Order: sequence, then C-alpha cells, then structure tokens
Amino acid sequence: MASAPEPSHCKVILAGNIAKSLQNEVQEGVKKLERAPLLVGFLATDDAASRVYADWTGKTCRDNGFDFELREVTKDDIEEGIMSANTDDKVDGIIVYYPIHGNRQDQYLQQIVDIGKDVEGLSHKYIFNMYQNIRFLDDAKQRKSILPCTPLAVIKILEYLHVYNPILPYGNRLHGHTVTIINRSEVVGRPLAALLANDGANVYSVDIDNVEQFHRGEGLRKRRHTVDEKGGWTIEHCLPLSDVVISGVPGDKYKVPVKLLRNGAVCINFSSEKNFTPEVKEKASIYVPAIGKVTIIVLLRNLLVSACTK
Amino acid sequence: MASAPEPSHCKVILAGNIAKSLQNEVQEGVKKLERAPLLVGFLATDDAASRVYADWTGKTCRDNGFDFELREVTKDDIEEGIMSANTDDKVDGIIVYYPIHGNRQDQYLQQIVDIGKDVEGLSHKYIFNMYQNIRFLDDAKQRKSILPCTPLAVIKILEYLHVYNPILPYGNRLHGHTVTIINRSEVVGRPLAALLANDGANVYSVDIDNVEQFHRGEGLRKRRHTVDEKGGWTIEHCLPLSDVVISGVPGDKYKVPVKLLRNGAVCINFSSEKNFTPEVKEKASIYVPAIGKVTIIVLLRNLLVSACTK
Repeated sequence: MASAPEPSHCKVILAGNIAKSLQNEVQEGVKKLERAPLLVGFLATDDAASRVYADWTGKTCRDNGFDFELREVTKDDIEEGIMSANTDDKVDGIIVYYPIHGNRQDQYLQQIVDIGKDVEGLSHKYIFNMYQNIRFLDDAKQRKSILPCTPLAVIKILEYLHVYNPILPYGNRLHGHTVTIINRSEVVGRPLAALLANDGANVYSVDIDNVEQFHRGEGLRKRRHTVDEKGGWTIEHCLPLSDVVISGVPGDKYKVPVKLLRNGAVCINFSSEKNFTPEVKEKASIYVPAIGKVTIIVLLRNLLVSACTK
Repeated sequence: MASAPEPSHCKVILAGNIAKSLQNEVQEGVKKLERAPLLVGFLATDDAASRVYADWTGKTCRDNGFDFELREVTKDDIEEGIMSANTDDKVDGIIVYYPIHGNRQDQYLQQIVDIGKDVEGLSHKYIFNMYQNIRFLDDAKQRKSILPCTPLAVIKILEYLHVYNPILPYGNRLHGHTVTIINRSEVVGRPLAALLANDGANVYSVDIDNVEQFHRGEGLRKRRHTVDEKGGWTIEHCLPLSDVVISGVPGDKYKVPVKLLRNGAVCINFSSEKNFTPEVKEKASIYVPAIGKVTIIVLLRNLLVSACTK
C-alpha cells in the first residue's frame, strides 16, 4: 500500500476570477441608480503607464455600466480642473493619475479632491479614519468611510479566499491570523498593515530597514491597532509564523525567500513584478499572483458608494 | 485619543447551535424516505451512563423523525441479539452501548455488527478506510465509507467554524492549518488526528508518553497521512504553533496550559470534563466547550446514509 508522491496542491487564483464576484455586486448596485455614475479622470502627464491605466479605467467603467470621462490638462491647470469637477453635480467620482509633479505637490493635490468624490480614498479624513479604525463618517453609520483602493482590494481578496472568518463578529474576522506584509509604503503597505491589524490580525510589516508588528493585543483588547518595533527581527523571523504572506516590492530584483514559508501559507503578490518564485507553489495552499483586476473593481465599488450617498 | 482596553473577544460557540444546522439537513433527508429509519440500541449492562446515553439517543431520534427501539439483553445474549438485528430488514442501524465486557470481547462484538447497519463507524473496514483516506466503499463512489461519530463530530464543528476552507478542493480543505490534539485513544484521538491530517492539516497528536506528527508532507504530496514521532517534543512545543487545539483528556485533573496558546487559536473540548480553564477566553478566537450534541446528530446522519443506501 505504498502511496506514490503526488504533485503539490497549491491553488492558484487569478484576480480576474475574484473580480467577477465583485463585478456582479457592483453591476447590481448600478442598476438601482437613476443614471450611470460618472467618473472623471485627470491626466496631466505624458507618462505611458498613467495613460494605460486611464484607458483601462475607462474600459472597465463602461463594461460595468459606469460613465467615464478623461480630462487631459496641463500641470498648471490640474488644480482648477479638480475644483471645477468638485462643484459639478454631474460628476460622481474623481480619479487623478499620479505622479504629476512627483513631489509633495501631488499630496497637496490629493487633498483638493472633494471628499464626497474621492473614490481613491486618499483624503486625509479617510486615511485618518482608516488608521483610527473608524468605519463611518457619521454617527448614524450611514456614510461609509472610503478605504484606499489597493489595500481594500487585498481585503476583498482575503474575504474571497475565506481568510476572513464570517463566524466571527464584523471587525474581528482576522482574529487568529498572522500576516507578513513586505512593503511599508504610505500608499499600500502601511495602510494595509493597519487595516488587517484593525480587523484582528497579528501583522508583521517588513521593509528594508526593520520589522514592525501591528496588532490589537491579546484577546484583541484594543479597539484599534498599535505598532511595536521588533528590534533585531528580519523577514526570517516573520515568515515561519505567518499563515498569510503579502508582498509588494517594486522592481524585478526582490524575491520572497519561499523556503521560509509556513507549509500551506496563503501568498498574495501586489507588486507589478513577480515577488514570488514559481517554487511558492511547493509550499503555499493558495497563491494569488497579481491583484490589479480586483483593484479597479474596488475603485468602481467606491464610486458606487459615493454615488449612492450623494 | 487614548483607546481604553476592552474585554477580550472570544466567541464561545455551544454544540447545540452547531447541531441545529446539521439537524435541518438530517430532518430534510428523513422526509425524503418512505418510512422513518429505525435505530436499534443494545443495552447489556447496568451502567448508569450507558442508560442515560441510550435514553438520550431515543429522545434525539424521535425529535428528528427517526424510530428508536431499545433492546435490553444479557451479556450472554448480546451476540445473538446483534445477529438477529443484522438480518432484520426493518432495522436500519445498530448502536451497542459499551463497555459490556470491558475487555477485548467488546472489540469482537463491534465486528459482529453488519457493516451496512454500523452507524457508529466501528467496523474494521470503515476504520481501515479512514486511516487509508479511502472515502467510498465502491469504485463508483456511490456508497460513502462511514466515519466514527466523535471524530466526525469534530470535523463537522470545524466545518461550521469555517476552519475547513471551501475554496480549496474537497479533501485538502485543512491545508495550512496546524492542529494539536490532546488525546490519542483508539476511539477518538488517533482517528481524529488521521482524519484531519488526511484533509491537509499538520497535526500534533499529544498523549502522556510523546508527541506524534500526522501530516501529508510539504505541498500535501502524499495522498494520505504519515506519522513521525517527534522525539523530545512536548505540548509546550506544539501549542505555540497551533491555530486549532482540540482536547479530550478524561477526568477533571488535566488542564491545557492556556498560557502557551497562540493568540486567536480555535479551542475545542471533547472531554466530558472541562480541559480548558476559563482563561482560554483571554487567548482564543473561538471556544467550543463541549461537543456531545453534535456527536448524536452525526450518529443520525450516519443512520440516514445507511438507510438511503440500503
């Protein structure tokens, strides 16, 4: 009765399949509105990647019952353009293709966008609420605080993968999970670490300098996460403890040391490059190689929320 | 903005609530049959616990649309009694209240019960299939191999708790979980370790003598579990690695060292005594204090399977 070894059992899940379930939800929502919500995109550079992303936004909008209008402006006109869209009742959401100035002026522009039309979730109020684990703009809990698209896309993926446990109360559904996030950018890595820790996970946030632990303490006693620096820790300490590993390191040089992965870990790559080598499939139970298609649907979901609460 | 500490967030889930969802499934199944399935119980001792269990079986049967008949026999008549029930077409399932002789003769009696009426899953063929990870009696996969009730009850509980991940293929849905089982009895602990490992978990089986690891290897390459003795390991090595801890130590002396539990672990007690101290709630995400009500519904579920495939 010797049992011959079989190939490894890693389930590779493509973002397109995850996006489909969200697409249905978004399309149903649009049907209930009187008119198609209008997203206005601002393109103020010659950057090829920005134009590709703009075209892709437009296509995805139209495919899902939304209107999209690309406004091409100069760097000098972008501020005025945004302000004009802010006060235009026909405009439901605004997306700006960064980088424009490539410096702090871009962060200034992000705060110009009217909070009710900020479907990217970049307004300071939204970011503040996210870190503080405040989920609504109003006390009556009618108006959801918008979350930034890429971190929210990762959350939607973790829900799809059943890492969020629906038997636990909303807000605590990652209790018991240990997550390593490789990337601590202000745009994705740090907000994502905060969001997952706020939902109950024990998160190790790894960047080139150090490891930080985002967590709500034993028994989730804290109502929002706190951060502890893990002196002397490296990714080698984090990976063997983590049942979820999320990597988003730019460039094609970086590779996650898959040998250190816990057997059966859930692995998600949000870098535009492949941070995991093919050997990830020897260890992981689930591998999601890219997330872009989910991110764009999440943007439409935010647009729908904005259009519904106007 | 200092956030005051809150009480710990452990969800205590009672077996009665878990049983309800299985009860609905069983009751729907019974309605599709021409007549109520008949379970015959054999009581051959004065043991008070056996009589309580027999009465409880009867009540649960009748509450869920099954018939139950208790046959009280002497130790000398039990073998003949079982053989007569084996050949009686009106009898769909047989349960024998052990211990009777309290020695190997009881194991002999277990093998007397006709395999088609063995709703407890104690026949050698069923036990063999369970350890070998063979899930059907026939090649056409029409006749399910029955699993022993208490281990199966734990599996049903883990499904209810969403520890089994439905996004993974059937048979691999515990991939990525590390489970400690404290108890390695032939009736529950060892079969349970084998079942969970066959479903993809990495299982540490702990008893008073040693620790054994039941697993299917990296990437679940083996089609059924193998067992490695973990020389020098104790429960202190196992608990910090385990996201699920299942304890079934008889008697009121034993307590799981909850301080060693992983934050947010899922804890299940199948002992008739409380193996976990109340402090388990400071650490666990989910705590199931007892499983008896699920076990009895699982027995009826096995009876339904037998009645349907006659």
